[in-house]
Amino acid sequence: MPEFLELLPPPVALAALLRHLEPQPVPEKIMTVNALGRATASGIHAPHSLPAFPRSTVDGYAVRAADTYGANDSLPAYLSLAGDVPMGAEAGLTLSGGQCALIHTGGMLPAGADAVVMIEHTQSTGQGEVEVLRAAGVGENVLKVGEDVLEGQEVIRAGVRLRPAEIGGLMALGITQVEVTHKPRVGVLSSGDEVIPPEQEPKAGQVRDVNTYTLSALVQQAGGEPLRYGIIPDQEEAMLRVARTALQACDLVVITAGSSASTRDLTAQVVNQLGKPGVLVHGVNVRPGKPTILAVCDGKAVIGLPGNPVSTLVIASLFVVPVIEALMGLSRPIPKPYVPARLRINLSSQAGREDWFPVRLLPGESGYLADPVFGKSNLIFSLARADGLVRIPPDANGLAAGELVEVILF
Amino acid sequence: MPEFLELLPPPVALAALLRHLEPQPVPEKIMTVNALGRATASGIHAPHSLPAFPRSTVDGYAVRAADTYGANDSLPAYLSLAGDVPMGAEAGLTLSGGQCALIHTGGMLPAGADAVVMIEHTQSTGQGEVEVLRAAGVGENVLKVGEDVLEGQEVIRAGVRLRPAEIGGLMALGITQVEVTHKPRVGVLSSGDEVIPPEQEPKAGQVRDVNTYTLSALVQQAGGEPLRYGIIPDQEEAMLRVARTALQACDLVVITAGSSASTRDLTAQVVNQLGKPGVLVHGVNVRPGKPTILAVCDGKAVIGLPGNPVSTLVIASLFVVPVIEALMGLSRPIPKPYVPARLRINLSSQAGREDWFPVRLLPGESGYLADPVFGKSNLIFSLARADGLVRIPPDANGLAAGELVEVILF
Repeated sequence: MPEFLELLPPPVALAALLRHLEPQPVPEKIMTVNALGRATASGIHAPHSLPAFPRSTVDGYAVRAADTYGANDSLPAYLSLAGDVPMGAEAGLTLSGGQCALIHTGGMLPAGADAVVMIEHTQSTGQGEVEVLRAAGVGENVLKVGEDVLEGQEVIRAGVRLRPAEIGGLMALGITQVEVTHKPRVGVLSSGDEVIPPEQEPKAGQVRDVNTYTLSALVQQAGGEPLRYGIIPDQEEAMLRVARTALQACDLVVITAGSSASTRDLTAQVVNQLGKPGVLVHGVNVRPGKPTILAVCDGKAVIGLPGNPVSTLVIASLFVVPVIEALMGLSRPIPKPYVPARLRINLSSQAGREDWFPVRLLPGESGYLADPVFGKSNLIFSLARADGLVRIPPDANGLAAGELVEVILF
Repeated sequence: MPEFLELLPPPVALAALLRHLEPQPVPEKIMTVNALGRATASGIHAPHSLPAFPRSTVDGYAVRAADTYGANDSLPAYLSLAGDVPMGAEAGLTLSGGQCALIHTGGMLPAGADAVVMIEHTQSTGQGEVEVLRAAGVGENVLKVGEDVLEGQEVIRAGVRLRPAEIGGLMALGITQVEVTHKPRVGVLSSGDEVIPPEQEPKAGQVRDVNTYTLSALVQQAGGEPLRYGIIPDQEEAMLRVARTALQACDLVVITAGSSASTRDLTAQVVNQLGKPGVLVHGVNVRPGKPTILAVCDGKAVIGLPGNPVSTLVIASLFVVPVIEALMGLSRPIPKPYVPARLRINLSSQAGREDWFPVRLLPGESGYLADPVFGKSNLIFSLARADGLVRIPPDANGLAAGELVEVILF
């Protein structure tokens, strides 16, 4: 028990790591069309207003609003048709008093016009004359210049992850290249004398490398670029050599330890030789994943993960992903979406410790049920069978069947 | 009003489209390491059990459980140390009665052993003898052969989107290549005489193409491969020619219409000439996005979207994404995660119609506030300013400030 008093809760441990990191994301200019999921390196300002000209939001007639005042079904306003507004070009005419012009949605308002009457509220007499059956206010059915963005306005801040909407917005402004932060390079090292590459046939006592690949995939999902350094034997010198190489090439190095206590200690020893200040956190108050190592070595983050696959994925979600986001320069914490569900059965946990359980979502009578997938944390397929994770906070010693939980999908 | 009686609610409209589609996803074999986000084309069976040999889950001593019965602090069991189990190899020894062997986490149980006693519950006398201070049950601290998966078991079903956990699981089984469905090819066509490519400088009345790029990004996110067919003039012949070419090369064609009513009708005319049965749904009871067209032409899906950027993104989320998922062969509906938030202000909507509002999430006193981002649906940056969308169901005529809403991030 006293051991736990020394262990930091995950958010405190993460804060300790981030405090020692001073991410200086390197900017690079890339084609906007390829920028989905990347983070802006600097604020982006509108080179011109959007729309750049007043546009109709409906199909109808461009008018001078004053000419329609008082118009209604029984007392229409009669306007003379001055012409059509072509799409994609200037009207080439100026409305004088008592005139209107046919206009389509998205068309540019002719000079002199200040409103559009919807076609449904008009009648054409067919003789160059239009009956307007409803009054229009100034600006009605019109997108004003700059109504979307004004020239010079900051439209996207620095440190924003680009989504389809931002990609489209940049294109609307003609910004076909965008300055984003480079993808954090994440070195992935697996250790363990029993671990062999997946393409090899294991002999008795050997297991295939899982963590290199779950981690690479997770890094990729989070916006980083995984660099795989293979399987390192459980020897200090070998591990130090590869870790040094990785640290030089990468922004973050993740080492999954062999599963025994001795090799976990080895990781800490190696990390402490990589640079200052070295290991900041050794042990986190979470299950699975207690033996986690968080370090900063000469300005770069190094994370040591417990070797078993479930811990690796849980801990990587808690620490590796936020570090990648910090290295990308993402400025605004993104709320985590989840699926609310009711626990199908009781889950017990130890008070004072944060626990994460894999669960499968089952359709219930009203909403989803969260069905815990039990299995030792060595079992990778207990995660493959699950839809997400449920967190049991440290102030609870379990959750009762029927309780509402937040399932974070992975 | 009567118009709305003919409009289908979005889920009914989608079902009508999917009913006419018979997706036959084409399988392809790719490297597992590149398969993140892809869907399995067939069920995957374990070529061998996992673990393939009994493994220790702790650091300790492999024992015959019967030798430890009754052992406790004051009356330890004394076992003779037969040797060490090396990592990654067979023990090379067989335990006889009264013997134990040092073993590390992940090590292979020696023949004759059926349990492991944690090192914390032992004391080494240093003379080839170990005191066991606690009894172990058969199988204690041991991963049994096949405890994760059994040889021949279906470990991943057909139609499952591969996540980091599945990638790792496949690697654990030595499945370094996996049969996935090919990425649905989605042809993206923009129309509108006023629309120009983003790299061009717009003249008066012209606007840059936004929808091609928001759609491409969304298609990419959903797991499809966007093919851009550029901007088509609002002429039946030109649109038909390009749409035919796209339909031949693609699994799904998405046409964003010019924004006027006449060009929207043009899209429907063109779609009806592409193949049978043609337009299934013309108009959906949703805002924004009412003028949506859903069609199946000779077995392929064609979707016509209203031209303005906000409608395009909302409608593409409601229809294009699920069609891509169906074309990938994804079998299990994936629950949509969201962020619950309380509305900051009242939102009004029309009863009988499903409405979607862009909102920004603001940290509140207890949880998030959803702050509606107002703006006509022509304004792309009203989406860039938002974190997600809130749905107002058709049976409500608005939502009150303080109501709990589900914000779906985009």
